[in-house]
Amino acid sequence: MFTSSDNNKELFLGIDGGGSKCKAIVMNENNEILGTGISGPGNPLHGFEQATHSITESAKLALKDANLEHIELNELNAGVGLAGVNLPALFMKMQEWKHPFKQMFLAHDLLVACLGAHHSNNGAVIISGTGSCGFSCVDEQEVMVGGHGFPQGDKGSGAWFGLQATKQVLLSLDGIVEQSLMNDVLLKKLACTDATAIVEIIAGKKATFYAQLANLVFDAAEQGDKVALAIVEEGAEYINSIARALLTRKPSRLSMLGGLTPRLQPWLDKALQTQLSEPLSAPEVGSVLFARQELAKQQSSNSQ
Amino acid sequence: MFTSSDNNKELFLGIDGGGSKCKAIVMNENNEILGTGISGPGNPLHGFEQATHSITESAKLALKDANLEHIELNELNAGVGLAGVNLPALFMKMQEWKHPFKQMFLAHDLLVACLGAHHSNNGAVIISGTGSCGFSCVDEQEVMVGGHGFPQGDKGSGAWFGLQATKQVLLSLDGIVEQSLMNDVLLKKLACTDATAIVEIIAGKKATFYAQLANLVFDAAEQGDKVALAIVEEGAEYINSIARALLTRKPSRLSMLGGLTPRLQPWLDKALQTQLSEPLSAPEVGSVLFARQELAKQQSSNSQ
Repeated sequence: MFTSSDNNKELFLGIDGGGSKCKAIVMNENNEILGTGISGPGNPLHGFEQATHSITESAKLALKDANLEHIELNELNAGVGLAGVNLPALFMKMQEWKHPFKQMFLAHDLLVACLGAHHSNNGAVIISGTGSCGFSCVDEQEVMVGGHGFPQGDKGSGAWFGLQATKQVLLSLDGIVEQSLMNDVLLKKLACTDATAIVEIIAGKKATFYAQLANLVFDAAEQGDKVALAIVEEGAEYINSIARALLTRKPSRLSMLGGLTPRLQPWLDKALQTQLSEPLSAPEVGSVLFARQELAKQQSSNSQ
Repeated sequence: MFTSSDNNKELFLGIDGGGSKCKAIVMNENNEILGTGISGPGNPLHGFEQATHSITESAKLALKDANLEHIELNELNAGVGLAGVNLPALFMKMQEWKHPFKQMFLAHDLLVACLGAHHSNNGAVIISGTGSCGFSCVDEQEVMVGGHGFPQGDKGSGAWFGLQATKQVLLSLDGIVEQSLMNDVLLKKLACTDATAIVEIIAGKKATFYAQLANLVFDAAEQGDKVALAIVEEGAEYINSIARALLTRKPSRLSMLGGLTPRLQPWLDKALQTQLSEPLSAPEVGSVLFARQELAKQQSSNSQ
């Protein structure tokens, strides 16, 4: 059992904070997973208070899951990977957070996802969950493709698919486009009977809401529905473009991550599919690897 | 000069509350315009407090403009046309407002726009401003086409055009689509040099923000830019669909209204353009006509 005085056995916290949830993992110095925790949204773009609360909460849950409740957060070296902190202003704001950890090493979610997927600083990832994005890190050069947020970007993401479905259903209820298999499913899911009722429910809804509707597009496409097929093909073609852009960087490996992967991957260009490798670990493990890299750099510069 | 004791000369207030501003007009019983006022957003969908504040504020400004500052709001019969109140929940909420007027007659913005444009209960309007929508009122049957809000609907609106421009510029900065004339203009307008800076500015922005970018799409299209032309053609084709749907109702007249009309109308189907009539009056005048109709109904039922 770990104790506070057990100085030789260092504990690491890994955080992966995204738009819909924040995942935490506690690992020991042998990279063994001791416990995990999940809390609410962790993207500071949607609220600094919410994000910092989710990070702390998920960390406590992970310690509890590991039966390490006697360990204080200030005994943990935390690697914190967050969506949104690719924006310099949000990165600064999070860096200024009076965090409860021993040390906090902040990175954007793409870097930790890439580190987790490849256990290496050389690789690339495509992410399609609530949002979508491509990222490569090759020869210490980081390149991001897409990831511009909802609704202005994030094509091929769960939110994008859900929004396309909603748009098509609304247009069809006005008789502007043909009805599709998605009509009944969406109306039932939202417990609506007409366009006005749909609009009343969806007004002002964010990406996480629309992402919950993504599956119905794939369900309809898999049944051969023309409208759904057109949406899936458009979304998949954008993800193909991201993959092609990343492959020009010649990463050692390319993985696809995120909640939409099982539905979307089969629709990608077949040649591209063969170039995808399974991710080795989850992004929150990548956060721990990032913290350990940064700690090693600190120790190396301190010893000089 | 009107005075409070001048009972024979009734005053009417007309309100047209939209997503970006609220317009007020004071008219006498001869339908002469005595004064006008403009304040902030009047669509209760974007905030009840803001909308009711804007209505009251614009009414006071209109009285001041008419040199009628000595008249109290509770001496005015108000026709209040508001975007958003086609949604039953918002209509109810606005009806429950402890308004400062003698009487308030609430209608959705499309009905008052139609009344204003045609001085008649038989007609149809296409609106493209911040949002887009079609509406017809024929034989007391009201039909609404579109108007589903941003970003899920309102195709062919200012917000839609601005969002399409932003999407295309972001995609081109990733090398996914070709650059267009819109790139430099948008980057300059937002004082940005890259995609990250754009995303930082536009994150979470609403329809009114994007509507301010609509003109740059038309500017580029008019210079023959292919990307902008495709956007304009797609938006115009949707407005064509709205017009065709409305014409099946056989309205006595069809008008196009809203801030985007001068830019968008020339791009519509030529045959449809010949079927458009200039609006006779503004929507806020329609609100007064609505109030007078409703008052007449009251008086007729009281006298029975």
